[in-house]
Amino acid sequence: MPDSPKLVLDQILYGGDYNPDQWLDRPEILTEDLRFMNEASVNVVSLGIFAWATLEPEEGRFDFSWLDERINALTANGQKIILATPSGAKPNWMAAKYPEIRRVDQHGIREPQNGRHNHCLTSPVYRKKVALLNAELAKRYANHPALVLWHVSNEFGGYCYCDKCMSAFRDWLKARYETLANLNHAWWANFWSHTFTDWEQIVSIDESVNAMVVDWKRFMTEQCKTFIANEVAPLRQYTPTVPVTVNYMTLFGDYDYWELAKELDVICWDSYPGWHDAPNDTPIALRTSFVHDQMRAFKADRPWLLMECTPSVTNWRGISKPKRPGVHRAIALASLAHGSDAVMHFQFRKGRGSCEQFHGAYVDHSGNQNRIFREMAEIGSELKDLAAVTGTQEPAQAAVVYDWNNRWCIEIARGPRNDDKNYDETCIEWYRPLWEAGVPTHVIDQTVDLSSYKLVIAPMSMMIRPGFAEKVQAFVENGGTFVTTYLSGWVDQDTNAFQTGFPGPLRKLLGIWAEEMDVLAGYEAQTSVATKGNSYGLNGAYSVEHFAEVIHLEGAEELAHFGGEYYAGSPSVTVNKVGKGQAIFVASRNDARFQSDLISRLIDQASVKRALPRIPTGVNVQVRGNFLFAINWAPETKTLDLNSSYVDAITGDPVSGSFELVPYAATVLRKA
Amino acid sequence: MPDSPKLVLDQILYGGDYNPDQWLDRPEILTEDLRFMNEASVNVVSLGIFAWATLEPEEGRFDFSWLDERINALTANGQKIILATPSGAKPNWMAAKYPEIRRVDQHGIREPQNGRHNHCLTSPVYRKKVALLNAELAKRYANHPALVLWHVSNEFGGYCYCDKCMSAFRDWLKARYETLANLNHAWWANFWSHTFTDWEQIVSIDESVNAMVVDWKRFMTEQCKTFIANEVAPLRQYTPTVPVTVNYMTLFGDYDYWELAKELDVICWDSYPGWHDAPNDTPIALRTSFVHDQMRAFKADRPWLLMECTPSVTNWRGISKPKRPGVHRAIALASLAHGSDAVMHFQFRKGRGSCEQFHGAYVDHSGNQNRIFREMAEIGSELKDLAAVTGTQEPAQAAVVYDWNNRWCIEIARGPRNDDKNYDETCIEWYRPLWEAGVPTHVIDQTVDLSSYKLVIAPMSMMIRPGFAEKVQAFVENGGTFVTTYLSGWVDQDTNAFQTGFPGPLRKLLGIWAEEMDVLAGYEAQTSVATKGNSYGLNGAYSVEHFAEVIHLEGAEELAHFGGEYYAGSPSVTVNKVGKGQAIFVASRNDARFQSDLISRLIDQASVKRALPRIPTGVNVQVRGNFLFAINWAPETKTLDLNSSYVDAITGDPVSGSFELVPYAATVLRKA
Amino acid sequence: MPDSPKLVLDQILYGGDYNPDQWLDRPEILTEDLRFMNEASVNVVSLGIFAWATLEPEEGRFDFSWLDERINALTANGQKIILATPSGAKPNWMAAKYPEIRRVDQHGIREPQNGRHNHCLTSPVYRKKVALLNAELAKRYANHPALVLWHVSNEFGGYCYCDKCMSAFRDWLKARYETLANLNHAWWANFWSHTFTDWEQIVSIDESVNAMVVDWKRFMTEQCKTFIANEVAPLRQYTPTVPVTVNYMTLFGDYDYWELAKELDVICWDSYPGWHDAPNDTPIALRTSFVHDQMRAFKADRPWLLMECTPSVTNWRGISKPKRPGVHRAIALASLAHGSDAVMHFQFRKGRGSCEQFHGAYVDHSGNQNRIFREMAEIGSELKDLAAVTGTQEPAQAAVVYDWNNRWCIEIARGPRNDDKNYDETCIEWYRPLWEAGVPTHVIDQTVDLSSYKLVIAPMSMMIRPGFAEKVQAFVENGGTFVTTYLSGWVDQDTNAFQTGFPGPLRKLLGIWAEEMDVLAGYEAQTSVATKGNSYGLNGAYSVEHFAEVIHLEGAEELAHFGGEYYAGSPSVTVNKVGKGQAIFVASRNDARFQSDLISRLIDQASVKRALPRIPTGVNVQVRGNFLFAINWAPETKTLDLNSSYVDAITGDPVSGSFELVPYAATVLRKA
Repeated sequence: MPDSPKLVLDQILYGGDYNPDQWLDRPEILTEDLRFMNEASVNVVSLGIFAWATLEPEEGRFDFSWLDERINALTANGQKIILATPSGAKPNWMAAKYPEIRRVDQHGIREPQNGRHNHCLTSPVYRKKVALLNAELAKRYANHPALVLWHVSNEFGGYCYCDKCMSAFRDWLKARYETLANLNHAWWANFWSHTFTDWEQIVSIDESVNAMVVDWKRFMTEQCKTFIANEVAPLRQYTPTVPVTVNYMTLFGDYDYWELAKELDVICWDSYPGWHDAPNDTPIALRTSFVHDQMRAFKADRPWLLMECTPSVTNWRGISKPKRPGVHRAIALASLAHGSDAVMHFQFRKGRGSCEQFHGAYVDHSGNQNRIFREMAEIGSELKDLAAVTGTQEPAQAAVVYDWNNRWCIEIARGPRNDDKNYDETCIEWYRPLWEAGVPTHVIDQTVDLSSYKLVIAPMSMMIRPGFAEKVQAFVENGGTFVTTYLSGWVDQDTNAFQTGFPGPLRKLLGIWAEEMDVLAGYEAQTSVATKGNSYGLNGAYSVEHFAEVIHLEGAEELAHFGGEYYAGSPSVTVNKVGKGQAIFVASRNDARFQSDLISRLIDQASVKRALPRIPTGVNVQVRGNFLFAINWAPETKTLDLNSSYVDAITGDPVSGSFELVPYAATVLRKA
Repeated sequence: MPDSPKLVLDQILYGGDYNPDQWLDRPEILTEDLRFMNEASVNVVSLGIFAWATLEPEEGRFDFSWLDERINALTANGQKIILATPSGAKPNWMAAKYPEIRRVDQHGIREPQNGRHNHCLTSPVYRKKVALLNAELAKRYANHPALVLWHVSNEFGGYCYCDKCMSAFRDWLKARYETLANLNHAWWANFWSHTFTDWEQIVSIDESVNAMVVDWKRFMTEQCKTFIANEVAPLRQYTPTVPVTVNYMTLFGDYDYWELAKELDVICWDSYPGWHDAPNDTPIALRTSFVHDQMRAFKADRPWLLMECTPSVTNWRGISKPKRPGVHRAIALASLAHGSDAVMHFQFRKGRGSCEQFHGAYVDHSGNQNRIFREMAEIGSELKDLAAVTGTQEPAQAAVVYDWNNRWCIEIARGPRNDDKNYDETCIEWYRPLWEAGVPTHVIDQTVDLSSYKLVIAPMSMMIRPGFAEKVQAFVENGGTFVTTYLSGWVDQDTNAFQTGFPGPLRKLLGIWAEEMDVLAGYEAQTSVATKGNSYGLNGAYSVEHFAEVIHLEGAEELAHFGGEYYAGSPSVTVNKVGKGQAIFVASRNDARFQSDLISRLIDQASVKRALPRIPTGVNVQVRGNFLFAINWAPETKTLDLNSSYVDAITGDPVSGSFELVPYAATVLRKA
Repeated sequence: MPDSPKLVLDQILYGGDYNPDQWLDRPEILTEDLRFMNEASVNVVSLGIFAWATLEPEEGRFDFSWLDERINALTANGQKIILATPSGAKPNWMAAKYPEIRRVDQHGIREPQNGRHNHCLTSPVYRKKVALLNAELAKRYANHPALVLWHVSNEFGGYCYCDKCMSAFRDWLKARYETLANLNHAWWANFWSHTFTDWEQIVSIDESVNAMVVDWKRFMTEQCKTFIANEVAPLRQYTPTVPVTVNYMTLFGDYDYWELAKELDVICWDSYPGWHDAPNDTPIALRTSFVHDQMRAFKADRPWLLMECTPSVTNWRGISKPKRPGVHRAIALASLAHGSDAVMHFQFRKGRGSCEQFHGAYVDHSGNQNRIFREMAEIGSELKDLAAVTGTQEPAQAAVVYDWNNRWCIEIARGPRNDDKNYDETCIEWYRPLWEAGVPTHVIDQTVDLSSYKLVIAPMSMMIRPGFAEKVQAFVENGGTFVTTYLSGWVDQDTNAFQTGFPGPLRKLLGIWAEEMDVLAGYEAQTSVATKGNSYGLNGAYSVEHFAEVIHLEGAEELAHFGGEYYAGSPSVTVNKVGKGQAIFVASRNDARFQSDLISRLIDQASVKRALPRIPTGVNVQVRGNFLFAINWAPETKTLDLNSSYVDAITGDPVSGSFELVPYAATVLRKA
């Protein structure tokens, strides 16, 4: 989308979901809210996310009067508006009149009206109703100066198996495969006599047909994408300069977010990790940063937005500890460090009833006289000093490949082991040394152009999608460093195994052949032992768990070998020099020291840009333009050595040399 | 019910469920049973509990001949009759002819005929069939001298979601709320666009609408109540002096037992705890006593009945150890100690087949030549000596509030934590020090009049029902001691949060404000540290788990403070002196020593009557009229010091000073 | 079946499932397969197991051309053919056109087409379609010289609850019970008013009616049996001399395999245990041998076949480690040791897609250049030297009773304990000392004639089927040694408890009466203490878990007594000498030392034939004709002492005296 509108901001967006529609009979509350917003330096609110029943209380009768009034009052009060389309929850009257909009499960049972996010994405009626309401909204607020962004629906998710969905799936399959012969071949359908002889035989999802399951997820991605397109069409028509977003969730598996991103102007996500689940929050900060770096990769030419997080607690976890003093500030600044232009929250005010009544908010049931509000107001005040951060996005020289198609393939695969596949965790573990070194990183998928990177890590690339192998080959030949691991190059886009020897299309580039996969039960103590004198930072024996692939050199050089089992002595880490670059294969799942040793050496070898030469463990350092962000997630005080002179962007104090960061301390420095 | 008939007994009821309808083709068994009953001093049996198929073998054809014969034989043999209505299990012919009587689940699927206790409580046909049969039964046995009690149906439980139930729910809601506007407001239904615009939209239960879920349970309570009323009407018509009971189960959550009690004359329950699950049975004895003390509170002017327990084993637990020698005797006497006038059992004789064939009984498959029968006969013989216990009910000066509406509210609440809410366990833990001190106690709900108590403990009173706060205020002003805890005063009867600051309507009385709730993950070591020199028995640091509410003094006095976390030093236990009384707030879930220290001091302060000044841990002592009961549940011998002279009520031996109780020893002493 | 045809072999069958129908568009693969088969000494393949969609691509249109071609090519290449009927997976077209062939679950929901092994066993349409196709197959290949065996369908399993099944169930019940009165009596149906007054009321399975559940499993066994008979009829008609088999699974509970065996000529099973799940594979080898010895008991006059196992990994386990080098060879030889005439595998070649793509095979995705193929080829080569083993079946003097009816009874019984019933594990534990002693053993059920045995062990014989007690009485009187345990003789074939005192019809023979069952929670330390000077090898205190039955002597002699609990000192092991034999009762579940001590002494007492006088633990030794097999499953080297002179059947080297077996070493010796 070359003409995709960008957000133009003169401040960091600070605010959150706001639901005045729950308080229309309490004008004193609405008035109080305006005051509290300004006390907390809130400059934007997300309006109307679940307001369909209030906007269209009966079919065809729209009531925007309350929304007009609220938008005008907020605008007058100084807030900008992110306006939501309300399709995340269907009104009761619609669910009753049009049963087709309620989802059907895999047993053919249509669910009753309840909850949210459970409309059929295919339903023509629902799509029509959504488009109609969106058009009304867009027309009405098209010229409103406070409207900065469209928030389309909410946290899309889930599948429907109704007749309309299955019929649309058949159409999608016809377009993809043209003939049943092609489909049967791609699906390896002769297995267990699952050969389709009529398109109409496709009426449910057969878990034993791997390719069907992956195609179903691709199709559901397409349904979500066209559902969004249908929502967005009237918005673009009436408000062509107002960008459009959809709030993503952390590593959410139902749809391929790379596909949905094509319909969007701005990327945003809702972040609710389990802060304080353990004494050390570093693993959670790491995982959150991984997702942040995925968000910035979706649209690398612009910032993304932290659309939701909680000011204090979630309400749905088994144990949801309130964020301790200062912790939310650290979280907020970390999101800016990784490229966000917003710190937004669910929710501005706690509702009195229903299932989210105890979710954290700026304003508590009893008002704003409490610790949380005070901290929120302090953060809001500080963010004003960081306005200059906005609009920029740091380029990345390193990338980690996390691919939805590959993920689905790994999930549906029966074997080589089914316990502890851990694709998410493995990608994050490979990202860890980059994060610890303050390397600006993109989390990409196999479709992304690699030419701007120096180092690409693609763990567990079981499925090689069309074009990826060729792209990696060129990347390496041109000087790039490529790293991949066990369980890579096993199957094609149809989940069918390569017959040319694993790692399939990467075999030649990597210079190895993977003969068989060993999997490790808990009682075994396997190791990967570094070759003495290797120049990749490896030394000693690394412990191995879960996966150990038995490989043979076909041109590659051995960097380590296995210490035990029947393949003891055979290579466990290899490098193949190709063109100006190199391709590294790691045959086993190793302990954390391994990734630290290897990746920190590769960063040096490839001269990948990093924020500072030395960063203590647990300190999250990122550069963004002239700004240096440092957040200490470790439970003890750390000392950071700066290599140039800075000014504290909030206090204005000069900072240089080394300085201390107590736990959760977060500092933003501007180049002096 | 001012004219509610009472049981008038000249002996403790001793017997159990008896199913001669399973043995009609075995007259020698029936004859043997009569002999065995007298050998075991059985003086009453419960007849006909699941006999519908035998009483009405085809629609409209009743067969009472076998029942006539059995009742006459039993009467002649010396047994009294508790006559059951058979509605607990519907006959196959009825389930086949009237599908509407079979329940429908939340997915809309009607269940096939099976099991028991699974009729639709709403079904007009089933209600009609029940009333018809009950009328026949009542007419036939109206003047039978052996008929002492009506046993209505059996262990009511469960929900049905059929159209008839949903329609009745809508009617109930119309009566409760009058308008949809009121309903939407009470249900906070604008949240997630759940606004109802037509009553007919209410067709299922939406778990995201907390108030709807709680209202559903209130409605299902009402359905059970009117179902009972429908059963009872013909019984009262033809046998106005015969009392009516329904057998309750331990802390059963489906219906509010306080509501059902309004239809009953006599309270009874079925007790099947996991005796011998652990080396020490004291916790199980404690929990059982808690339920006993709830039973006596339901009808404080009369004794209750232990309607069922097992002579030896249950058959449905994972591990169900036979009660060791003497243990059942201790259990039986403990029920009398807490106000029962009966020791009844499931079952008199083991059936040969189906799923309860191995449940304990007086009479085994092979007859009465076994340990269990011998012990049962000994207990029966001893109970004859305790006839004077009957008819009395000890008044209580202490009460623990365990409230169904509050329980449902806690269960459906998402947050502040969802793991380890433990409402039941917490109420029992607060009851423990009263039990250990031999204090006669009532377990009540928020609707009960408090004027007769000196000490009321209401743990985790998240929901404050209408009138409760006012009642507690008056209770304290008049000299009462009131104790409550964290998570109290959060929401109103509609589960909507109070906006006046927690603990809501109790804030002024307690003299504190609760700012936020901390919840503790397993790794944290929080403490509640007693203020030095406090006069409430608190000393040192108590360990805290799960909940710690951050509170501020608003007139109350601090008795302890938190030892750690960001709110270290803030108050953790407070007392507020109001009028002649005091209100105590305990902000955290503390270790057992805390409850022991605080409650034993409050018992002294308030001069709450206790059985004896000093009672060793694990010994269950209760006074009932002139009788003192002492049962040792601890796994070691304990010495009990008496403060006056007694006679052993069974042996007639004089007893005074101190005497030893071996494990499971149970003694009944009469004031000399 | 007196004229049941046997397999006549001049070699051990070596090969596996082969699915050329997945590769018809890849002739180079098909050609390669022929070459690889001969490289691996494959002499037989199972063809067409899931080929229905290829054999009958549309209704009534059969296509055998590809199969003709493959069979001819294979025959020309030297392979024999096991031809499958393809009913294990229904084609999509059939599932679409005839919904009745898809199963209905217990909630009445018909499942969509997916997976396999999920056709309704009752469906007349499906039976007709199967018979039609089988007739076509049989006619076409009737005279083909390579056809050695019919492989009927695949791994039968599961239940359907559709109307047709329930109707057939009613017919089966009418035949069994004649009148509803008989049925109600057998089902103890008056319990919970479950009395049936019309056959049409039987429309679902009520788990509370134990006998109904057991009858349902008997009925489903009958449906499977008649389904097989329907499949087999045309095969017998056109190929009367070709034997028929169905592949069984390990201790599979859905149907009584003894009943199915009546329709079969040859027994075979598919073996997929969790090799390498733990450091020591001995327990898995033991369990596998137990099933082997059940297979040979099904048809004691002929060998059985190992129809499936994996050359390397399964694909469906949580962790499925590849078999380490040499391990599959040990597994293959162990199956021969226990009477198999075949070592067959799933699968010859890995398919590229769908859910079994990563299951082990001779030929990998990339061909045959790998460890697994090399090992498979070596095994194939060695098996040629063992052709003389075929056709023989070693007689057994010992038997362990494992009975499906009893198993179902134990499973459905509620009580005496529901955790850790462990019927399978207990039978295998009693089999262990026989296996360790190298005793040829049959695993039988209660219907088998006992006259050929010297020692019969029937653990946990809760249900005594008609005739079993009389048979055991005669067996003992004639000199046999009978051993049984706690939980025996409780119920009759209708699951109704005996009223004559447990162990019911075995009471007199055993000379004891079981008064009550104690069950042990984990915290208790019970023991069974040997009587000093007993002549049954018992000494010291054996630890007891789970079950301890309190028994009394009625003629038997005490061999041990309980060490604790309220029945301390009462007998725990007894022997009753009757006629020329003896009957032993073991009242508790004891530690492994107990079974070893008792059974090794009984082997000596009864002069039961064993392979060698002394066998080290973990070494599996079996005699088969002139051959002695020895496999070391222990993780350390063991030394075996021979008592005569042998020749290594593979190398031809003379062997005598003692020789060492490293872990997984497997040796076949021929009497010199």
